[in-house]
Amino acid sequence: MALIVQKYGGTSVGSLDRIRNVANRIKALRDEGNQVVAVVSAMGGVTDKLIGMATELTSSPAEREMDVLLSTGEQQSIALVVMALHELGIDAVSVTGRQAGIRTTGSHTRGRINSIDPDLMNGYLKDGKVIICAGFQGLREDGMIHTLGRGGSDLSAIAVASALKADVCQILTDVDGVYTSDPRVVKDARKLPEISYDEMLEMASTGTKVMQSRSVEFAKKYGVVFEVRSSLNNNPGTIVTEEHDQMEAVVIRGVSIERSQARVTITGIPDEPGMSATILCCLAEAEINIDMIVSNIAYDGLARHSFTMHSNDLGRAQAALKPVLATLGGNSEVLTEAGIAKLSCVGIGMRSHSGVAAQMFKALGEAGVNIGMITTSEIKISVTVEEHQIEDAARVVHTAFELDKAPVV
Amino acid sequence: MALIVQKYGGTSVGSLDRIRNVANRIKALRDEGNQVVAVVSAMGGVTDKLIGMATELTSSPAEREMDVLLSTGEQQSIALVVMALHELGIDAVSVTGRQAGIRTTGSHTRGRINSIDPDLMNGYLKDGKVIICAGFQGLREDGMIHTLGRGGSDLSAIAVASALKADVCQILTDVDGVYTSDPRVVKDARKLPEISYDEMLEMASTGTKVMQSRSVEFAKKYGVVFEVRSSLNNNPGTIVTEEHDQMEAVVIRGVSIERSQARVTITGIPDEPGMSATILCCLAEAEINIDMIVSNIAYDGLARHSFTMHSNDLGRAQAALKPVLATLGGNSEVLTEAGIAKLSCVGIGMRSHSGVAAQMFKALGEAGVNIGMITTSEIKISVTVEEHQIEDAARVVHTAFELDKAPVV
Repeated sequence: MALIVQKYGGTSVGSLDRIRNVANRIKALRDEGNQVVAVVSAMGGVTDKLIGMATELTSSPAEREMDVLLSTGEQQSIALVVMALHELGIDAVSVTGRQAGIRTTGSHTRGRINSIDPDLMNGYLKDGKVIICAGFQGLREDGMIHTLGRGGSDLSAIAVASALKADVCQILTDVDGVYTSDPRVVKDARKLPEISYDEMLEMASTGTKVMQSRSVEFAKKYGVVFEVRSSLNNNPGTIVTEEHDQMEAVVIRGVSIERSQARVTITGIPDEPGMSATILCCLAEAEINIDMIVSNIAYDGLARHSFTMHSNDLGRAQAALKPVLATLGGNSEVLTEAGIAKLSCVGIGMRSHSGVAAQMFKALGEAGVNIGMITTSEIKISVTVEEHQIEDAARVVHTAFELDKAPVV
Repeated sequence: MALIVQKYGGTSVGSLDRIRNVANRIKALRDEGNQVVAVVSAMGGVTDKLIGMATELTSSPAEREMDVLLSTGEQQSIALVVMALHELGIDAVSVTGRQAGIRTTGSHTRGRINSIDPDLMNGYLKDGKVIICAGFQGLREDGMIHTLGRGGSDLSAIAVASALKADVCQILTDVDGVYTSDPRVVKDARKLPEISYDEMLEMASTGTKVMQSRSVEFAKKYGVVFEVRSSLNNNPGTIVTEEHDQMEAVVIRGVSIERSQARVTITGIPDEPGMSATILCCLAEAEINIDMIVSNIAYDGLARHSFTMHSNDLGRAQAALKPVLATLGGNSEVLTEAGIAKLSCVGIGMRSHSGVAAQMFKALGEAGVNIGMITTSEIKISVTVEEHQIEDAARVVHTAFELDKAPVV
C-alpha cells in the first residue's frame, strides 16, 4: 500500500465525463489498496470564463478580487470529483486550499506556498478516505483567499506530496512525459524514463513547457520525486528526481527549441559601471521578460549588449529603451532582429565531458545552420538560429548526440 | 451618515448589467455619505446549474460536497460586484461568509448562524470601504464550508446588520414590499408601510413568500428592524419591526392565500394517549411538511385527525400512513381530498378585538364560499376553501376588512 498524490489539470476534469474518468482512475488505485490524494484544477474553460466576466466589468480587476473569483473554479471541481467518486462507492472528501492547510505568502494572484499544515488531511487518510484537494490556492497569513499563479496546481500537488510524505507524486497531464525533443519536430524523439530536476528546469525554461519552473524548483528544494504522465492512458511517464551517477553517463538529455524570439542589440554603451543595470531595469519596469543576455566590448571600446525576448514584446521593448538611449551619450543605437529561434542542449553529463559545444556546433555547421548568439550554463548550451532553420537544427543535433537511441548504462 | 446593510438576491445580480446596476445603487448611497455593507446571493441561475451538474454525477450528492459546490456561487458574485464598484471609483472589498465571521452550526446544507465575529468587517468599515459580503454561507465550528439553506442570504443580511449594529437593513427583492394581499389576485391590494414581525411570520407561513420565516424569526429575536423593498426602483417598501400600539388599531393586516393544498383525514383513531404522535411521527419521518392540524372526537368515540399539506406530497403521505393504519385497530380509514386552498387573515389587532372570525365567515358565506377546516392562532385565522373559489374568497374578505383603504390611526 502506497500513498499516492496525483495532480489532474483542467483538461483532465474539463467535462462531467472526464471527471468520471478521473474518478475511475482513482478507484483503480484505491482498489489496489493505495491511499490517494488528488489535487485538481478548475474545469477547463471555467477560469477563462470567469476572467472574461471580470474584464467585462473593469479593465483592471483588483488582484485580491481575482483571487476570490478564480479560486471558485477549483472549489467546484473538487466537489464534483468527490461526487463522482461517491457514485462509484469510494469514500472521498474534498478539501479547499485553506482546509488542506496550504499557507501562502506574497501578492495576490502570485502566491507562494509558505507551509502546509497536513493535520486535517492526515485525519481523513487515517479514516480511509480519498482526498480531493483544490489546486492553485491557499490561505494567506492575513486570512485572505490566495491563488498561486501559473502552474499553481502542480505546485500544490508537489507541496502536498511533500507535506504528507507521499510515496509517489504523479503530475497527470495531456502529454506522455518528457521527451528528448518535441516529437512533432523530431520524429525519433524518445520519451525519457527519468530526468534530473536541473535538467527538467533547463528544459522547462527552454521551451519544453511540461511544467512551470517554480514547481520543479519546489520539488528539488524539498526532494519530492515526481512523475509526469498522461491522464489519458496508463503508460509510465518520466520520473523527475535528484541526479545520480548513472545520469551523468548521458551527456545530453534533450534538445529543446523555442520559437518566435527576437533580438535587441544596444550598441555604443560607455564602458562604465551601472550601464547594464540601467538598461535592464528599464526593461524590467516595462515587465518584459528577457531570456539570453550577451555582452561584449566592441573594437571602439564601447560595449554592446544583446538580449533575446519573445517577439511579441519587441515593440514594447523598443519603446521602453528609447528614454534610456538618450542617457547613454548619443553614440548608442538600438538594433532589432525578429524571426529567430533558440536551440538548447541540456544534460548534467556535459559537466564532466568536454567538447559538447564543439560537437553541437559541428553538427549545425555541417547542416548549413548559422549560429547567432551563444550562451551557456553549467548544464546547457543555447544558440540562436534563423527561425526557418530551427527544425532542421533540432534534428541534426538530436542525431549528433544519438538521442534517438536509448542510452546503454 | 448611516450604516446601511442591504441584501441583493440572485435576480438582482443575475447578469453583468444587473451587477452594474447594484454597484450604481450602492454608489448612490455612498455618495450620500453612508457606509454600506451589501450581502449578495449567487447570480440567478448559477446555483441551479451547479445543482444540475451534481445530480448528473450522482442521484444523491453528499450534502457536505453540495456546500462546497454551491458556496462558490456567492463567492463569484461578491468578487464581481466589487469589481463593478471599483470601476465606479468606489473603494470596496469582498468578504466570504468565513471572512465575515459568520460561524454556523447544524447539518450541511441547512446551517444555522451561531455567532458573528465582525472584527474584519468593522476594520474595513473604519477604513471607509464598502463591504460586499457573500450571503447563504458561513464557516462551521469544525472548519467546514456551510450553507444556510433556503432564504439563507436574507438570514445572512439580518445577522450581519445585527452584528454590525447597522442603522438600516434593507432586503432588496423583486417585489415592492409586503401587500395586504397578492396584488395579482386582489386588484386593490395595498402596500403596507409597516408590519410587525409576528404578522410577517404568519404572512410568510401562509403563502406570502416574500421571505422565509427563519429570517423574520432571527430579526425578531435580535430586534433587527428591516425593510423589504424593490431592487428595481427607489420606492419605499415595508418596514418589518416590533409591534407598537398604533399597529393594534388595525385588526387585520393582510389576507394571504395558499393554493395546491390537500387534506388527509384519518378516521377511527382510538382515543388513547400517543395516537397522534404515532401518526405525526410517520409523516415527519417521510419528511412531509404538514400545515394545518385539526382533530376532533367523532360521535363513535373514535378520534379523527385532518391535516393539510401541499398536494405534491399527497401520494407520499398516503404511502407513509399505510403501515400506521394497521396499528390503529382496523377501524381506521385514510380519506384524502386535493384541490383545496387556504385563506388566512393575519393581524395583531385581532388579539384585542372579538368578532373577527365572525366578520370573516360572514363575508365568505355571503359570497357563497363554503368553509372546510378552520384553525386559529392568536393573530391568524385560517380556513380551507375549494381551490376554484380562493380568489373570490380573498377579494371578499379583503373588502370586508377594508384593507383597500389606508387605516386612519
